[in-house]
Amino acid sequence: MHKATMPVSLPSPSIMTSSTDGSTLHVSEENRVFVLRRKGEFHYETRPTPELPTSRHVLVRIMATGICGSDIHYWKHGEVGPFVVREPLVLGHESAGIIIRCGTDVKTVQVGDRVALEPGVPCRTCGFCRVGKYNLCDEMRFAATPPIDGTLATYYTVPEDFCFILPPHISIEEGALVEPLSIAVHCTKLASITIGQTVVVMGAGPIGLLCCAVAKAFGASTVVATDIVDSRLEFAQTYAATHTYKMQQLAPEQNAKTIMSRCDIPAGADVIIDATGVESCISSGIFAMKKGGTFIQAGLGNSNIIFPVGELCAKEGVYKTSFRYGPGDYELAIELLKSRKISLKELITHSFEFDCAEQAFVGAGRQEGIKSIIYGPRK
Amino acid sequence: MHKATMPVSLPSPSIMTSSTDGSTLHVSEENRVFVLRRKGEFHYETRPTPELPTSRHVLVRIMATGICGSDIHYWKHGEVGPFVVREPLVLGHESAGIIIRCGTDVKTVQVGDRVALEPGVPCRTCGFCRVGKYNLCDEMRFAATPPIDGTLATYYTVPEDFCFILPPHISIEEGALVEPLSIAVHCTKLASITIGQTVVVMGAGPIGLLCCAVAKAFGASTVVATDIVDSRLEFAQTYAATHTYKMQQLAPEQNAKTIMSRCDIPAGADVIIDATGVESCISSGIFAMKKGGTFIQAGLGNSNIIFPVGELCAKEGVYKTSFRYGPGDYELAIELLKSRKISLKELITHSFEFDCAEQAFVGAGRQEGIKSIIYGPRK
Amino acid sequence: MHKATMPVSLPSPSIMTSSTDGSTLHVSEENRVFVLRRKGEFHYETRPTPELPTSRHVLVRIMATGICGSDIHYWKHGEVGPFVVREPLVLGHESAGIIIRCGTDVKTVQVGDRVALEPGVPCRTCGFCRVGKYNLCDEMRFAATPPIDGTLATYYTVPEDFCFILPPHISIEEGALVEPLSIAVHCTKLASITIGQTVVVMGAGPIGLLCCAVAKAFGASTVVATDIVDSRLEFAQTYAATHTYKMQQLAPEQNAKTIMSRCDIPAGADVIIDATGVESCISSGIFAMKKGGTFIQAGLGNSNIIFPVGELCAKEGVYKTSFRYGPGDYELAIELLKSRKISLKELITHSFEFDCAEQAFVGAGRQEGIKSIIYGPRK
Amino acid sequence: MHKATMPVSLPSPSIMTSSTDGSTLHVSEENRVFVLRRKGEFHYETRPTPELPTSRHVLVRIMATGICGSDIHYWKHGEVGPFVVREPLVLGHESAGIIIRCGTDVKTVQVGDRVALEPGVPCRTCGFCRVGKYNLCDEMRFAATPPIDGTLATYYTVPEDFCFILPPHISIEEGALVEPLSIAVHCTKLASITIGQTVVVMGAGPIGLLCCAVAKAFGASTVVATDIVDSRLEFAQTYAATHTYKMQQLAPEQNAKTIMSRCDIPAGADVIIDATGVESCISSGIFAMKKGGTFIQAGLGNSNIIFPVGELCAKEGVYKTSFRYGPGDYELAIELLKSRKISLKELITHSFEFDCAEQAFVGAGRQEGIKSIIYGPRK
Repeated sequence: MHKATMPVSLPSPSIMTSSTDGSTLHVSEENRVFVLRRKGEFHYETRPTPELPTSRHVLVRIMATGICGSDIHYWKHGEVGPFVVREPLVLGHESAGIIIRCGTDVKTVQVGDRVALEPGVPCRTCGFCRVGKYNLCDEMRFAATPPIDGTLATYYTVPEDFCFILPPHISIEEGALVEPLSIAVHCTKLASITIGQTVVVMGAGPIGLLCCAVAKAFGASTVVATDIVDSRLEFAQTYAATHTYKMQQLAPEQNAKTIMSRCDIPAGADVIIDATGVESCISSGIFAMKKGGTFIQAGLGNSNIIFPVGELCAKEGVYKTSFRYGPGDYELAIELLKSRKISLKELITHSFEFDCAEQAFVGAGRQEGIKSIIYGPRK
Repeated sequence: MHKATMPVSLPSPSIMTSSTDGSTLHVSEENRVFVLRRKGEFHYETRPTPELPTSRHVLVRIMATGICGSDIHYWKHGEVGPFVVREPLVLGHESAGIIIRCGTDVKTVQVGDRVALEPGVPCRTCGFCRVGKYNLCDEMRFAATPPIDGTLATYYTVPEDFCFILPPHISIEEGALVEPLSIAVHCTKLASITIGQTVVVMGAGPIGLLCCAVAKAFGASTVVATDIVDSRLEFAQTYAATHTYKMQQLAPEQNAKTIMSRCDIPAGADVIIDATGVESCISSGIFAMKKGGTFIQAGLGNSNIIFPVGELCAKEGVYKTSFRYGPGDYELAIELLKSRKISLKELITHSFEFDCAEQAFVGAGRQEGIKSIIYGPRK
Repeated sequence: MHKATMPVSLPSPSIMTSSTDGSTLHVSEENRVFVLRRKGEFHYETRPTPELPTSRHVLVRIMATGICGSDIHYWKHGEVGPFVVREPLVLGHESAGIIIRCGTDVKTVQVGDRVALEPGVPCRTCGFCRVGKYNLCDEMRFAATPPIDGTLATYYTVPEDFCFILPPHISIEEGALVEPLSIAVHCTKLASITIGQTVVVMGAGPIGLLCCAVAKAFGASTVVATDIVDSRLEFAQTYAATHTYKMQQLAPEQNAKTIMSRCDIPAGADVIIDATGVESCISSGIFAMKKGGTFIQAGLGNSNIIFPVGELCAKEGVYKTSFRYGPGDYELAIELLKSRKISLKELITHSFEFDCAEQAFVGAGRQEGIKSIIYGPRK
Repeated sequence: MHKATMPVSLPSPSIMTSSTDGSTLHVSEENRVFVLRRKGEFHYETRPTPELPTSRHVLVRIMATGICGSDIHYWKHGEVGPFVVREPLVLGHESAGIIIRCGTDVKTVQVGDRVALEPGVPCRTCGFCRVGKYNLCDEMRFAATPPIDGTLATYYTVPEDFCFILPPHISIEEGALVEPLSIAVHCTKLASITIGQTVVVMGAGPIGLLCCAVAKAFGASTVVATDIVDSRLEFAQTYAATHTYKMQQLAPEQNAKTIMSRCDIPAGADVIIDATGVESCISSGIFAMKKGGTFIQAGLGNSNIIFPVGELCAKEGVYKTSFRYGPGDYELAIELLKSRKISLKELITHSFEFDCAEQAFVGAGRQEGIKSIIYGPRK
């Protein structure tokens, strides 16, 4: 595996921008794509550069794409839940790039803008879309979810309102992580965290870590990160957690009791966020929750789990599940970066050239590091 | 078992009221109480008529008390969850009566008023009480929950603001059912049901039936009642459900699919209320729920259940639990009666004299009928 | 003025539907439009039948259009607030009709459907649209608001999701009134009225009357209608109000005091809805509001008014303003009709043939009756 | 006027605490009180040390009391709104002190605790109290509001849950300012400010400044303070505002336009908080508000103002009024201090010995400095 310890030199956006005299940069390169042909089998292809579907779309040169657990899962198993890879599929949906061409009615972004991409485009007309819950849209077209191709390519098109301009001090690699940050924003917003609250986040992977950071940005005074891996907890402590706890092979009540006593939250936490999907973590979280508290299910594991409903009822707790992100989530993620309330660069532990993309999957599949980035094709 | 088909003649409240010239009715009778000495063993005692603890308390002559599942459970098992009968305990908490004496600072009720009693009195000073969630108060003193005695007695005292005057057309027996109605009000309010919504209520016992009725009062256009007993479903149909469904020995997905197709809710129900606590019902409910829907856990069974978390997450569903009732719930229950949006009398299928109280437990323990009432002592 | 006391015979939708073998009815008629050339001056034109702008639009044969206060205002003054009639403008936005042609991607409606039209189409991409507040969209294209033409024409096109199928028992004339009903739904929803609440509605014109009806449908137990015209109050009493009050030439405190005592709401009303825009009504409403109450400003009059801010502050009242309608409002209006919780037919006091459209403006300008309808062109 | 530039030496809480062996400190001093005999006329009295009204009350030795605009108003005019000084009245309600004696059932605080006092004690039983809106309680007993005496005395009693322990690093003088901070917390919470929002605060007096600071703590990225006094704006800029604006003698539209352009909020601010009560400020704020925005009325001036209702309606804005504070507000104020998100010491510009209390009123009446403190009697 190739570990890029130094930032790889990227085509400079400023040069690209200055070279244009209008609304279009010269686009000479071919559109290379990295395709999952079937379970376990990748190959490279050259495809036509995509046309803009509407006058409000933009063409983006993809500069960096993060690897997500679902990408790994498609590669290893050929499916994620109900979504099965039946045709060759381009993976990748955590992406940032540079706008190369704008449709004629585009108003809010321009050629040369460095942008994070929101990878799921809803129908905009159904009841869910109209009411502001477009993440529930039945017609959602989500990158790297069969049969919709993802962003591991030279070019990608999105509607202008699914592009978000990166603050100047945010690198394009960090820009790729606006997607998982938006996941954390969405689930943390569901918890309505306010100043002084206590939050326990189960799991210190990328999403759990980002939930810790977002919870803190919302004013949480105590943020406990839990995991079973020491190195993750150490990182969490330096990154955003005020306390950490290594989960033990104990009954949920016992894990909860220890969390509550060690972290000085005798009545339990106002909010629990589970970013593991693991039964024992979920149960421990419910026992560590305050009466009247809120539990956010951010991660997903087995479809069925044993669940301590009695404990939840005795507390009149609310158990909310979180699905992707909706209106305002990318905007808030960008704002958190702009105001420097959150930093992403510490999370990028590995980066790979596009030609070595498979190595990124191999390493990420072994859970090495926190987040791996694959750069866009160089030419 | 004695089944009272005709309303038993009660001491007339109007006569009692007219006989008073001030704030106190003449109280000559002894205070008889029906005591659960230990698991399975009742006896009668005579105790002193209780003093008013504060100048804002009232003394109530108990006229009728409904039997609740928890009463049966204490009788059969000597405990409910963490609450264990260690000392002799008076059961009963679904009660109505007539105010016999008022403390000197009582302003909102008067002697002779026919009232429903809210049986749990919180501390009024903790964080939960201050913020309007007194049902979560750690210092709650709840009737018939060890070590607090219940209402199967001649007399009972409550603070004036835990008395609710019954509308004139509501009988005192119906008044006893304001308590379970308030349970239904609380959990249905948590669902924020609005006009035109679809609601599936799992379980057609007293709470499930009342949830159907309250959901309808909030404007639900489709209210599906489910159960495994035909007679309950038949009653539900005449009482408040627009559709009924007899649960089958099938996978939850299958039960859900059938409910959705038969009741013409192809996208699922906006709201599911589970009044059973039974694992298969909860699972079926989650599969029958619409994306973005709300599930209310109103009933409680096993402390741990197998739970379809994957399905809930895919829908970004919210799973709320409901615990007793809080501010405004009794008031709304009374309003539903006053405006005749809800009728309670159909639910009272059995009634017993105080001297035959044990028979009420025997019958209710066999799940005969819907709701059994025990009258207060006659003298 | 021609008063249509009998329903005029309309082209039968069922015949029209049965005559089609596919997605398009034969459309032979010309597109006649009734144009406000400039302030005070109408004329008729024939224009081309509009093309479908997208494959998700439908072509509607307009069958009935209600006359709104804003239509009258454009006719009399050539402007409404910041909107000035600079080019000839077709008025009318309260409309129902029959779908004549469907774009190729239309899925939710079909040719022959009798529909109410939602007359404002937002951009679907701005922050307001994404978050479910499309009524605030800066790019809104609203019928009969310069420079967007309205519905006083043979044909009109809308996106399919801005069509709402009428229940079978609702006439096409009533369908035209789904628009003002949606106005009432929107502002009443803002008040979050629940069962048993008290509501005072200032003004018994069409919007005020509909607010009374919607408030009642939401469970309000006391609904007070106020006005200065006896006949309106009499109608309100038969239509939806539980109490009426004729506003007097008195200080706001005095009008409020009288309302509160006569209607037996000593602590004031939970909700006030002002459908007049008149300063004295607004002030009286604030004085008649309960502590912690909500005031909804539904109607608009002068841009600046004298406002009793001290009284509002002492009550910690919330003063919300309502602008048009948003997601879910038309749906709820249709549901209120479907469930027969609201009836519209009583409100239609006058109807006019398309060729007599100007008479409708003359009559409505004199505030004759409650609501006037203009039928679509007959051929 | 005596200006205390150095902190005056206070009886050391630690010594007082260590000198006690139980629940009561030795209390030898007399209870001196500073009384407003009638409009404009103060005098000193010695009164009995108050008894604890209930076993859950505490006796507090008052160490510092801030002077509020309402205190000044009672002194100058003998009344504030409907509250008239008919009997001699002790003023002062912004107070902190040390607990000297605890009732037998007090559990959450102890003798020696340094506490801020919440000066209004509600009935705890009415509908408002039960639902968590005790600031609206009709039976509220509020310090220094006729006929309830205030805290300019040696001793004062409060229920234990109306005492809030100060963080160790917060001085007792700052503790007195927890009251105005709670005012700011209450009104800012009403605005539901979230990360990245823009807030304009009209008025840079103590409440306006604290609103700026609380808005920032809630994550506002742009906080504009306005005033007509340069020195206040200069202070605001160093204290909590990101931008300041000196109000001009211009139409509200013009002031708003300038604020919006200078502070780079072209669409207006998400939230406006008015801490002036002045008509021109309120109007300017409404014009500077974003569509769909929220306006919080925190300060109060004239009872009736000219109000730009048209502009508010066009934006579907919400105008909320704020009255005192409710559950959770003092707790949040303390948390803001504990987490050092807010600092109070800069606001205390003047301090006076108890024997010079009248000088404090004279100076504060001239609007010298920001906040004046009167120490409790020394012996």
